[in-house]
Amino acid sequence: MFRHVVLFTWVEEATDAQKAAVVTELSRLTEIIPEIRAYTLGSDAGVNPGNHEFAVVADFDSVDDYLVYRDHPEHQAVIAEHIKPILASRAAVQFAF
Amino acid sequence: MFRHVVLFTWVEEATDAQKAAVVTELSRLTEIIPEIRAYTLGSDAGVNPGNHEFAVVADFDSVDDYLVYRDHPEHQAVIAEHIKPILASRAAVQFAF
Repeated sequence: MFRHVVLFTWVEEATDAQKAAVVTELSRLTEIIPEIRAYTLGSDAGVNPGNHEFAVVADFDSVDDYLVYRDHPEHQAVIAEHIKPILASRAAVQFAF
Repeated sequence: MFRHVVLFTWVEEATDAQKAAVVTELSRLTEIIPEIRAYTLGSDAGVNPGNHEFAVVADFDSVDDYLVYRDHPEHQAVIAEHIKPILASRAAVQFAF
């Protein structure tokens, strides 16, 4: 399996509605991109200080299937329309497991 | 379920042996801490530029079980002896899913 992990922080001005739209729009991708094997996402639980604010963990059968997701026009549209407008910082790793 | 996600970058002087020890020592925790439900870790595959270098994704039944892991002396020993000496930066999120 191949796992994509990405963590975000949002700009201070980001509204709850904008953050909720990221969840809704990303979640829709599981119905659109059949290469996604598992998809979990969520806002930080607030247990530890200094954390990022939001996480996505997506699993694929292969790196090629991950690339289908990464480059899919619907995914790119979510990034452009919902993530980038409120993005402060981003950290990511992809790894085989 | 409760998911802990953490991404690391290492200092430039970190050796392959030091990085391998992080993998070995963290992997041992699955045999020591029964609260861990799933544990995946790995070095970045090099598919995308600008990524962090190493990821850990750990799943628990509850936030309380995550806290057992977070504060477990054997985990803290791995952090102190193997991670902190080569740590450049760290990004983390915990979320319920």
